Amino acid sequence: MKKLATLTVLAVASAASFAQSSVTLFGVADATVQFGRGSASNNSGLGSGGNASSRIGFRGVEDLGGGLKAGFWLESGFNLDDGTGSSNLSGGDYNNQFNSGYSAGSGLRFARRATVSLMGDSWGEFRLGRDFSLQYLNASAYDPFGDNGVGSTLLTNTRMGLGGPVATRVGNSATYFTPNFGGFYGAVQAYRGEQPAGTNHSNGNGYGARIGYKNGPLDVGLSYAKTDYAADAADYRVGDIKDWGLGASYDFGMASVMAAYRKQEVNNAAFGDPEGTGYIVGAKVPVGAGEIRASWSRFETEFTGVDAKADKFALGYVHNLSKRTAVYTTFAYVKNKGGAGVALNGATLTSANDNSKGLDIGLRHVF
Amino acid sequence: MKKLATLTVLAVASAASFAQSSVTLFGVADATVQFGRGSASNNSGLGSGGNASSRIGFRGVEDLGGGLKAGFWLESGFNLDDGTGSSNLSGGDYNNQFNSGYSAGSGLRFARRATVSLMGDSWGEFRLGRDFSLQYLNASAYDPFGDNGVGSTLLTNTRMGLGGPVATRVGNSATYFTPNFGGFYGAVQAYRGEQPAGTNHSNGNGYGARIGYKNGPLDVGLSYAKTDYAADAADYRVGDIKDWGLGASYDFGMASVMAAYRKQEVNNAAFGDPEGTGYIVGAKVPVGAGEIRASWSRFETEFTGVDAKADKFALGYVHNLSKRTAVYTTFAYVKNKGGAGVALNGATLTSANDNSKGLDIGLRHVF
Amino acid sequence: MKKLATLTVLAVASAASFAQSSVTLFGVADATVQFGRGSASNNSGLGSGGNASSRIGFRGVEDLGGGLKAGFWLESGFNLDDGTGSSNLSGGDYNNQFNSGYSAGSGLRFARRATVSLMGDSWGEFRLGRDFSLQYLNASAYDPFGDNGVGSTLLTNTRMGLGGPVATRVGNSATYFTPNFGGFYGAVQAYRGEQPAGTNHSNGNGYGARIGYKNGPLDVGLSYAKTDYAADAADYRVGDIKDWGLGASYDFGMASVMAAYRKQEVNNAAFGDPEGTGYIVGAKVPVGAGEIRASWSRFETEFTGVDAKADKFALGYVHNLSKRTAVYTTFAYVKNKGGAGVALNGATLTSANDNSKGLDIGLRHVF
Repeated sequence: MKKLATLTVLAVASAASFAQSSVTLFGVADATVQFGRGSASNNSGLGSGGNASSRIGFRGVEDLGGGLKAGFWLESGFNLDDGTGSSNLSGGDYNNQFNSGYSAGSGLRFARRATVSLMGDSWGEFRLGRDFSLQYLNASAYDPFGDNGVGSTLLTNTRMGLGGPVATRVGNSATYFTPNFGGFYGAVQAYRGEQPAGTNHSNGNGYGARIGYKNGPLDVGLSYAKTDYAADAADYRVGDIKDWGLGASYDFGMASVMAAYRKQEVNNAAFGDPEGTGYIVGAKVPVGAGEIRASWSRFETEFTGVDAKADKFALGYVHNLSKRTAVYTTFAYVKNKGGAGVALNGATLTSANDNSKGLDIGLRHVF
Repeated sequence: MKKLATLTVLAVASAASFAQSSVTLFGVADATVQFGRGSASNNSGLGSGGNASSRIGFRGVEDLGGGLKAGFWLESGFNLDDGTGSSNLSGGDYNNQFNSGYSAGSGLRFARRATVSLMGDSWGEFRLGRDFSLQYLNASAYDPFGDNGVGSTLLTNTRMGLGGPVATRVGNSATYFTPNFGGFYGAVQAYRGEQPAGTNHSNGNGYGARIGYKNGPLDVGLSYAKTDYAADAADYRVGDIKDWGLGASYDFGMASVMAAYRKQEVNNAAFGDPEGTGYIVGAKVPVGAGEIRASWSRFETEFTGVDAKADKFALGYVHNLSKRTAVYTTFAYVKNKGGAGVALNGATLTSANDNSKGLDIGLRHVF
Repeated sequence: MKKLATLTVLAVASAASFAQSSVTLFGVADATVQFGRGSASNNSGLGSGGNASSRIGFRGVEDLGGGLKAGFWLESGFNLDDGTGSSNLSGGDYNNQFNSGYSAGSGLRFARRATVSLMGDSWGEFRLGRDFSLQYLNASAYDPFGDNGVGSTLLTNTRMGLGGPVATRVGNSATYFTPNFGGFYGAVQAYRGEQPAGTNHSNGNGYGARIGYKNGPLDVGLSYAKTDYAADAADYRVGDIKDWGLGASYDFGMASVMAAYRKQEVNNAAFGDPEGTGYIVGAKVPVGAGEIRASWSRFETEFTGVDAKADKFALGYVHNLSKRTAVYTTFAYVKNKGGAGVALNGATLTSANDNSKGLDIGLRHVF
């Protein structure tokens, strides 16, 4: 019944014959049954990406000779529960801006990553387009849950935190990655906010840097970034943001342990220059075909008259059915203080400082 | 001029090597020249999917060993006439809700199907995500036109019918399909409406079941489903909906004949608990490289003071140029009574009870 | 670490086995650092498609035997700077209409091209769907910059020009292409505007034709098109539009030179029946692994009391790193007169008749 045919790739251009190349199609389909418990309401339903974000992508590398390569990477997130495109617009926003350009139920777009690169064996990679911010990479790399699902680290929670729209990804970016020097790696990044001409033209502009050392069981990373926003007297999160990150992990074999720190400072005099501070300590323990994951993370937001703090405890188990397919479950508990109101998996709280619980049970398939 | 290269598939994940697998790219490109005739206006233009819905998709299956498999399926509809994404949001709606979340001219999304599955040779398939509702499958399976184009069955017409947004597909669903037991097949399905916390939190929640027998020339199917909506005193379609379906087909070789029945009951006291009832009788007759298709279908909607009824007569011919490519034409005629106002292919009616005619002439290519 | 697997293509349909076929995945990833200089404001940022429009597509051809073929082509544009789908809706509009249906930040859609075709070795190609308009093909074919980036020809500038939404692409179209007769080629096209019934039902309907001769170094093309719009007393561009084009190029080996002419007439009595006239003269000069490109183009818009004219001078260099990958730069200067206000790369002008400069520096990769 099935007649199969090889999918072939043909490069197109006016009048040229092209060198052979390969394009890689890749993705993740991850569905999770979610339960959330809060003081005002509980919730249950189907979610997407409890273990790894559902996505589909296309990428390729061309060898230009002489140690030079060119590459592209196009990756779209989607919600496996209803098939719509996922926002992947940093903090729900578009082109490094607050409150713009995305609505739920929307279509697929390459908002996880859209880049073109030149790479040199000796000098590293120069990448243009939309990509992870370096500050996000350093905040998520030391989370045993990889910033996915109900157990994800509070260090990337932009609603309570101060991260602003560039917390996760940046559009209009140029990034240079060094090659690996005996374990040392580094990157610098600049990005533009794409505001029209006017008084806030530089909103969303910024730059970042990350350096680290990864060798054998040890991985240490340090990041710094600064993004410009005209201060908003009505929103404590809006103003020039500085972002520091430091993290480390060590793989003891029987367990991998990790810890990270993040600090954000917002230049907004109306709120006494808010500060956000996050910590995480976590571990991953291989158990037969599976892995136990656990973490504690905290995020504290301080500005005039406010010192809000949330603590999250998360415990999970991933059972690998193959290298590509796993069933998993994660339980998380959040303790809110000082006006914090983090709730999990769609549950709602009667008032701030109430606590919340969440549970994911899911199936993740990588292709 | 053309240098071809094999498209390769690489599974991505942190630090794992993956087993070999194949991803299937598939789709349909179907364009039809449409003519509609009504009492108020006629219409002509180019449409999409007169024989099979235009779509593009990606799917794959991984053998996990021991009779276990994992699979994914991502499928997006589109309008071949202008390249936009097609809604595929049940009845024009989003996540099993009335009146939400889609606008014309929108982008591609995996709204035809987005699922991840675990499958066992001995126990069947467990599937999570967005997929056909079981009640729809039973209503469309016994239409000689496969619910496509101007000849499609009235049993799935949600504007006149009572089916509500879950008539075609359900988001946030979990479905279990039994294996085939000597011709017997069955499935049960549960779905969630994804409403925020509040009085209508359960709007769009529901469940369904389907059992059938398919062996040799005979195929019989039976379905039942119930979906929750808070009754709306301004819309007779909105309220808890019960949906029954029964259909059968028999292939005599020189012709395949089929018939189906559908019944919907809405719990809405303001309208005296509306009821919808549909019937179809159809046939497919192979003729050389082609096939003649014919059907009569009726849908009757009854509520306080209203007994509206539409009858559709459809006749078509599909000429296969290959197994994948066909040219086709379909003519349909709708007779409205009791306040029904079904019009075909964009034509409009001066008033209810007027009749309408439609013609499709198209080209369908499967890839 | 990488285990590769062949991507396989499976045609889907009810109960049929399909002939072998191939699907081609293709695209362009092109990012450009843009600088714009104007009298009111300057701009800098990252853009997409300075050398070739960023896109991804799927296409295939099936041999039906007897000299007959079927084919499909689905192509979506995107913005590499932020991963969103690009409009590709002629002049920012949808289905040949003014001012409808697209917003920035939107999803991917096959709005560059979505077609299904029947092709005969002896009689040519019949194509249905969304595609380039023939009038656009003739206007862009004789631009050394291929209507991409800051140097693109003014003959396709619909904001200053009169081209209206069908300037670039048409939805709901049927096109017939002749085979090549000893260098002679031709095409005729009809399209529908997809307006609902009513007084402006025919808005966006039209037809076009193109004939040409291409043999050895010489390419000459001639086009004519007419599109219907009900005249709008508030917008000089809106009214029935006639569009003539003539262009020619000759490749002398050491240089290829080209020139084109475009004329548009709008039937809008409130503005004295506006006219637009465009000219371009350009050249491409191969230099080692690269190519120098230069052009002068003009567009003049005349209606009651207005005679606006813009002249653009563009100079660029493309350096090919391979047949698929290039770095490039383009400089352009626009001189506005008589009320014209064309500005480049996001710069803004204090008032009409001010001039603007723009610079692109980019990387283009074809896959």
